[in-house]
Amino acid sequence: MRPKRLVDAVLFDTFGTVVDWRTGIAQAVAEFAGDAVDANAFALAWRGRYQPSMAPVRRGERGFVDLDVLHRENLEATAAEFGLPLDRQPSDVDWLNRAWHRLPAWPDSVAGLTEIKRDFIIGPLSNGHTALLTNMAKHAGLPWDVIIGSDITRTYKPDPNAYLRTAELLHLPPERVMLCAAHNTDLAAAQKAGLRTAFIPRPTEYGPDQREDLHATGPWDVIGRDIVDLAKQLREHVA
Amino acid sequence: MRPKRLVDAVLFDTFGTVVDWRTGIAQAVAEFAGDAVDANAFALAWRGRYQPSMAPVRRGERGFVDLDVLHRENLEATAAEFGLPLDRQPSDVDWLNRAWHRLPAWPDSVAGLTEIKRDFIIGPLSNGHTALLTNMAKHAGLPWDVIIGSDITRTYKPDPNAYLRTAELLHLPPERVMLCAAHNTDLAAAQKAGLRTAFIPRPTEYGPDQREDLHATGPWDVIGRDIVDLAKQLREHVA
Repeated sequence: MRPKRLVDAVLFDTFGTVVDWRTGIAQAVAEFAGDAVDANAFALAWRGRYQPSMAPVRRGERGFVDLDVLHRENLEATAAEFGLPLDRQPSDVDWLNRAWHRLPAWPDSVAGLTEIKRDFIIGPLSNGHTALLTNMAKHAGLPWDVIIGSDITRTYKPDPNAYLRTAELLHLPPERVMLCAAHNTDLAAAQKAGLRTAFIPRPTEYGPDQREDLHATGPWDVIGRDIVDLAKQLREHVA
Repeated sequence: MRPKRLVDAVLFDTFGTVVDWRTGIAQAVAEFAGDAVDANAFALAWRGRYQPSMAPVRRGERGFVDLDVLHRENLEATAAEFGLPLDRQPSDVDWLNRAWHRLPAWPDSVAGLTEIKRDFIIGPLSNGHTALLTNMAKHAGLPWDVIIGSDITRTYKPDPNAYLRTAELLHLPPERVMLCAAHNTDLAAAQKAGLRTAFIPRPTEYGPDQREDLHATGPWDVIGRDIVDLAKQLREHVA
């Protein structure tokens, strides 16, 4: 008999929750720019333009464009802000822009995902597009079962359709899908759309001075210390 | 340095190429119907309605419907042909229809795919939809990197868009994608769309009397004995 499980699929926010974008981006910036800029500050500033850049797409004022496009526009704006010239080989600038495809996993991510995969369908539920998420998984060894990118749902979280279309493509009702994220606002939107929710903190995602998302601030179904701990808690529901 | 590779992604036809649908379906039919029908003949007849049922979708005469819908219509027609009553619990009939989600892999599939995954992005390029392919992979242990179902491309092979939209979602030009299939017509369409091609024979897919697709009949890039042999040949291109 199939064991009773809380959900059928456990999906994950990726940037910040599964991978450490700040470290990955800062390393790429340092390699690209040398000492010309503060690589950590550049990474934070580049990421700072992320949410505002998706807003016109969410509001329907701009047709869907993927994160390669938005990251590139945001890179150009950030480089201008930091006085970093981008007049290099186009392939070098592309390499930097595609650093978002090559982010390192947090230390617990691969072990935790591998464990959760034993009992559940696992995949990203990310604002990344399919190619980015596929390359990220190959690079970081993320053992996803399935990747449904934002270019497939054609929308960005926290638009409810981002969650609902993903569940629909898995032929699962929203309540049979769990989102795990290190961001309370993402979980609030997922819960409102009918998904189950799991919070894990990533207290250094933005660096040592991080003030947001240090703790769960909503009535989430599971709160874990990290993905390995989430795996352990989910396993108790299966046993 | 990145090694020189023939392609970046190796995608696979699934029904017949990676999984043995005849054995899987015949077992489910036998379990459902007992001695009431010849389970192998029923499986062949059910599958026989597969290509004709997709034709109106390919021609644009019918909006896209996924294989759960087509398999169900074809099940009802096949059951009528064989005099098999379907007036059971709806969940039992659903279970039978979803046997297409639970097909066994050919003996070489998992080992060969695992090997190819070391150097290439691997995924299905199938007429199955995302949920079916995800369930199939979980059941048979297929280690796909990414699953782009027919419900995402919204078309059925050999429509050229089935191949082209899949490559596009991976951000790869068609010539950087290889299709591996046990069916020469599928490869011909993929090649025409600009993909690389690999043939492997599955001489008992339709049973001991199979006459078609026993050998490669076109100028495919690679011809292997099975997926393990394909992995070996692809590795020579990487080394």
